[in-house]
Amino acid sequence: MDVFEAMSTCRAIRYLKPDPVDDDLIEQVVTAATWAPSPGNSQGRDFVVVTNPEKKRVIGEAVETVMAHRVAAMERPDRMHRLMLDGTEHLVETLKTCPVLIFVCGKAVYPYESPRESFVWSSIYPAAQNLIVAARALGLGTVFTTFQGTAEPVIRETLGIPEDVHIGCMIPLGWPDRNFGPLKRLPYDKVVHRDGWQGDLRTYPPTYDD
Amino acid sequence: MDVFEAMSTCRAIRYLKPDPVDDDLIEQVVTAATWAPSPGNSQGRDFVVVTNPEKKRVIGEAVETVMAHRVAAMERPDRMHRLMLDGTEHLVETLKTCPVLIFVCGKAVYPYESPRESFVWSSIYPAAQNLIVAARALGLGTVFTTFQGTAEPVIRETLGIPEDVHIGCMIPLGWPDRNFGPLKRLPYDKVVHRDGWQGDLRTYPPTYDD
Repeated sequence: MDVFEAMSTCRAIRYLKPDPVDDDLIEQVVTAATWAPSPGNSQGRDFVVVTNPEKKRVIGEAVETVMAHRVAAMERPDRMHRLMLDGTEHLVETLKTCPVLIFVCGKAVYPYESPRESFVWSSIYPAAQNLIVAARALGLGTVFTTFQGTAEPVIRETLGIPEDVHIGCMIPLGWPDRNFGPLKRLPYDKVVHRDGWQGDLRTYPPTYDD
Repeated sequence: MDVFEAMSTCRAIRYLKPDPVDDDLIEQVVTAATWAPSPGNSQGRDFVVVTNPEKKRVIGEAVETVMAHRVAAMERPDRMHRLMLDGTEHLVETLKTCPVLIFVCGKAVYPYESPRESFVWSSIYPAAQNLIVAARALGLGTVFTTFQGTAEPVIRETLGIPEDVHIGCMIPLGWPDRNFGPLKRLPYDKVVHRDGWQGDLRTYPPTYDD
């Protein structure tokens, strides 16, 4: 599939079929992730691919419990929170039922004297982006989430992820049960500055919709 | 161009021709960047596109000065540093002579009670990755660098970037004066863990070559 077609229709697919995804397709999307750059080509990143139903259940339920507590703690959820909760409700269900959950992890390994914290993130997130666009090109749906933060201790223990390895994102992968694209994005002129910063910082509410 | 072809040949192009890049091509690659996801579709990112020769000169020379100090401070540069310096030497020259320098900036705007620091990076780096792959698809070369850290005060002042906006990366863009691909990456089995972490953390020297 063409690069611009894949990127422009790569919207979050929160509804995924439970049907399995062949190992060779998983390998194709993760291999595409490894092609992303990293500081000095240090490649300080690892991919934890989870297909085990019991492990997905434990992780999904841990996230679900935290979310339920958050909702209970809100006396009167405002509109923002309502939208956020509606958007994530099915995603939590998806964590348990999707065929594949991928965690992109990382550790800064670039041997500068003073490695910058951004090194670890610039190793993880470009790889994750290649992964979701490659999946889209194969007709597979994903959601790029940093939702693992809600239940990180449980996830670390369930998957045995070492303490000094960052978990950058958690990506459900599977055959889509909704359509791809189009995307809702700010227009080009709102986000581009020519030869220097123009105007004030944008302030806008997120749409909770991608 | 096909997604897998573009990603698998998207190597850093440190040698760029000085020939200008049409505005509509710049718009295509930056628009592709805006298609990347962000937490809750918050889109907390801005793109500063620099084509002004004087501003590129000021930024390039500031980075050059810092690098020269670093080299002077090394009594006996070891092999790692030698490789690093060789790899970046021409890149510093490229900052001044490339037709376009793009800074992908960001600010966490997701209205959770406690926004995580990773929000800002997960808004910036996926966009930057779309940008370099889209450029590759159009035949344009880029280098994904976090090199702006060496001269950030000068860059902020030259471009008027607000203090509370992170600069995530600095990407020279232009027509390539070297060939694209192939990439040098660790094999799939070295970076993938199935259903849980396997083995110790990898330790390996980066190759300074991508």
